Amino acid sequence: MSDHHTYKKIEVVGSSRESTDDAIRNAIRQTAKSVDNLEWFEVVESRGHVVDGDIGHFQVVLKLGFRIEGS
Amino acid sequence: MSDHHTYKKIEVVGSSRESTDDAIRNAIRQTAKSVDNLEWFEVVESRGHVVDGDIGHFQVVLKLGFRIEGS
Amino acid sequence: MSDHHTYKKIEVVGSSRESTDDAIRNAIRQTAKSVDNLEWFEVVESRGHVVDGDIGHFQVVLKLGFRIEGS
Amino acid sequence: MSDHHTYKKIEVVGSSRESTDDAIRNAIRQTAKSVDNLEWFEVVESRGHVVDGDIGHFQVVLKLGFRIEGS
Amino acid sequence: MSDHHTYKKIEVVGSSRESTDDAIRNAIRQTAKSVDNLEWFEVVESRGHVVDGDIGHFQVVLKLGFRIEGS
Amino acid sequence: MSDHHTYKKIEVVGSSRESTDDAIRNAIRQTAKSVDNLEWFEVVESRGHVVDGDIGHFQVVLKLGFRIEGS
Amino acid sequence: MSDHHTYKKIEVVGSSRESTDDAIRNAIRQTAKSVDNLEWFEVVESRGHVVDGDIGHFQVVLKLGFRIEGS
Amino acid sequence: MSDHHTYKKIEVVGSSRESTDDAIRNAIRQTAKSVDNLEWFEVVESRGHVVDGDIGHFQVVLKLGFRIEGS
Amino acid sequence: MSDHHTYKKIEVVGSSRESTDDAIRNAIRQTAKSVDNLEWFEVVESRGHVVDGDIGHFQVVLKLGFRIEGS
Amino acid sequence: MSDHHTYKKIEVVGSSRESTDDAIRNAIRQTAKSVDNLEWFEVVESRGHVVDGDIGHFQVVLKLGFRIEGS
Amino acid sequence: MSDHHTYKKIEVVGSSRESTDDAIRNAIRQTAKSVDNLEWFEVVESRGHVVDGDIGHFQVVLKLGFRIEGS
Amino acid sequence: MSDHHTYKKIEVVGSSRESTDDAIRNAIRQTAKSVDNLEWFEVVESRGHVVDGDIGHFQVVLKLGFRIEGS
Repeated sequence: MSDHHTYKKIEVVGSSRESTDDAIRNAIRQTAKSVDNLEWFEVVESRGHVVDGDIGHFQVVLKLGFRIEGS
Repeated sequence: MSDHHTYKKIEVVGSSRESTDDAIRNAIRQTAKSVDNLEWFEVVESRGHVVDGDIGHFQVVLKLGFRIEGS
Repeated sequence: MSDHHTYKKIEVVGSSRESTDDAIRNAIRQTAKSVDNLEWFEVVESRGHVVDGDIGHFQVVLKLGFRIEGS
Repeated sequence: MSDHHTYKKIEVVGSSRESTDDAIRNAIRQTAKSVDNLEWFEVVESRGHVVDGDIGHFQVVLKLGFRIEGS
Repeated sequence: MSDHHTYKKIEVVGSSRESTDDAIRNAIRQTAKSVDNLEWFEVVESRGHVVDGDIGHFQVVLKLGFRIEGS
Repeated sequence: MSDHHTYKKIEVVGSSRESTDDAIRNAIRQTAKSVDNLEWFEVVESRGHVVDGDIGHFQVVLKLGFRIEGS
Repeated sequence: MSDHHTYKKIEVVGSSRESTDDAIRNAIRQTAKSVDNLEWFEVVESRGHVVDGDIGHFQVVLKLGFRIEGS
Repeated sequence: MSDHHTYKKIEVVGSSRESTDDAIRNAIRQTAKSVDNLEWFEVVESRGHVVDGDIGHFQVVLKLGFRIEGS
Repeated sequence: MSDHHTYKKIEVVGSSRESTDDAIRNAIRQTAKSVDNLEWFEVVESRGHVVDGDIGHFQVVLKLGFRIEGS
Repeated sequence: MSDHHTYKKIEVVGSSRESTDDAIRNAIRQTAKSVDNLEWFEVVESRGHVVDGDIGHFQVVLKLGFRIEGS
Repeated sequence: MSDHHTYKKIEVVGSSRESTDDAIRNAIRQTAKSVDNLEWFEVVESRGHVVDGDIGHFQVVLKLGFRIEGS
Repeated sequence: MSDHHTYKKIEVVGSSRESTDDAIRNAIRQTAKSVDNLEWFEVVESRGHVVDGDIGHFQVVLKLGFRIEGS
């Protein structure tokens, strides 16, 4: 077994009508459907849409890190 | 009708005793009283006051974008 | 009495299973046990662990400012 | 007459189907309809929409500087 | 149908002998051959080669955002 | 009365033949003629003109924050 | 043959008990097992674990660029 | 004697009614009361309060470096 | 012959009434009159003058890299 | 036992005549003499002295993170 | 006569026992002894030495721009 | 003798097949052939070429500071 690992980081954007944290959660759950071994997230940017003078959607840009299989 | 639009971005600071998201919401609702066509927000900075060893106020610095009338 | 104050800023990392705001709150409460006069916080970085394809912990890096005693 | 001037900087977003430079030009011409004494621009961000696998719109975020009347 | 979407951002570098905008266009068209639902681009860096004291190639580093299928 | 306030930040450029601090002061005094409730400033950039091998003008780019009336 | 190429950049994290350079090397070798045409790397971040008051692992975040096949 | 030293950097905020430089000086003098071996400062941020349309206080955020005793 | 090269980077500002790309081209051609072996450019900043509510000059700040003779 | 931890980050500068990695190691070992529970480091800045046209000392600015006792 | 100019920017560090502004002035005057056509300065970094718990020297890193002769 | 000095900073890129530190060393030694009084270096960027799935060259972008003669 290797004594060192290699990770990959991908950038995704999650959204939610509810909250910033929920936008993070949605991005992670959606990504986890096709990517294994997700280990951490980093918030890169936090933004959103305004509709009728109020928050329409929260949007959060994340980096997600996962271990490369076999590394 | 023009096939391109022009937007303006302004910078505001919202605050809330409740949450980061509520500070965003307060800034947007307050700005919407005097600015039409708000379309998006970008979080620039997130900070706050500490009172008696606990969070007093959340403060969020936002950029707010809106379409310039007639553009 | 002096007509000017001096402040110190320290950097801490709070965590929470619940929310980003709760991670901020935990860091402030824990720091307040040993540091007096905390006056403000600034969010430097927001990140966290992913466990089983969902958020495990929110982690928030903060700067905390406090007035230096006697200044 | 004063021996020093004061300027204000505002942030606008121009767009164009044609080119990056045209998006800059559109933002300046539109702003000049309501703001006098525009003196310089700074490109803050360059981006755009993709439509059917090709560029739909170029969008350029600019800062525009103008001298405050009477300063 | 979901009330929120998830997007992925990838980073590509386009080049062109003609212009900065053409380098952007080349990167988008090439990427669109294998990636569906491209929605926006962000210019990250603009650079190029110099050959014989003149511009040889423009090179533009872009982030490209697309909606994740099924999200 | 509201338990939270909303602030706006504007960006101005002050200049002075005398000093950096005087350029800040000039920008604030000029802005205060038309904007009420100015509460803080942040130095964004410090620069100037050179004339005959010496400093001609100091120029300071500032953000100025003020409370929105009625918030 | 095309007179311009398109490249993709991916972000990976390599680690090593030995050195910063070895962490870079491990990330490149591991990535090269599944990605062809790797042409350059850019160090984004350098960090690591501390174990018993000494360096446990060096970790280096890299961007890796490769030419897209057929471009 | 060791052929290499270790330094620590701390972050402080000085203020002054007089000038930017005086705010730096106040922070250094105040810190020197409790920290030995201060060797250098770096200005991180320059800001201040506005009172009645004029500068109330200058505030300067500094990093201060000092040699760790015995290193 | 050495198996490694050393390069120098210089910073120049080009301008043009025509376009951003032309401002880059002007800076490179002008610099090439006195500097040999120019190999690449990096756009650092893009800005310009506004005259009568329209673009007067595009100005582009570039870094230019060249191989040091004999390295 | 708490289900969340709080960490503190401090900034130190290590130096070495030998290598960048050795400067990191020296800073960590020196800090570990007085700080328990060091868990990770982040390289903030890498620099050094030049003596007689060659490297005199490598200097590395690090952030060091440790768990706060009892958290 | 050309309708466009090319400028070069160089980076210098000035110092002074007196003030930040004086450090800027010293750097400009010293540079003007060997460089013609200096037109503007930009402050990049402001720092200094601490001696006996007080400011020893102010040091300011500047970019200085000048028109290239014949452009 | 003057009680203050002026320094100039130049930007160079060193390379090496061996290591990051060796690329720094090569850049300094090559520059020292034509520039006197080099006093310090700052690493700006660390990157390199990949050849056959392994590191071909390390490349390090440095700023080098030297005292201006007579200052």
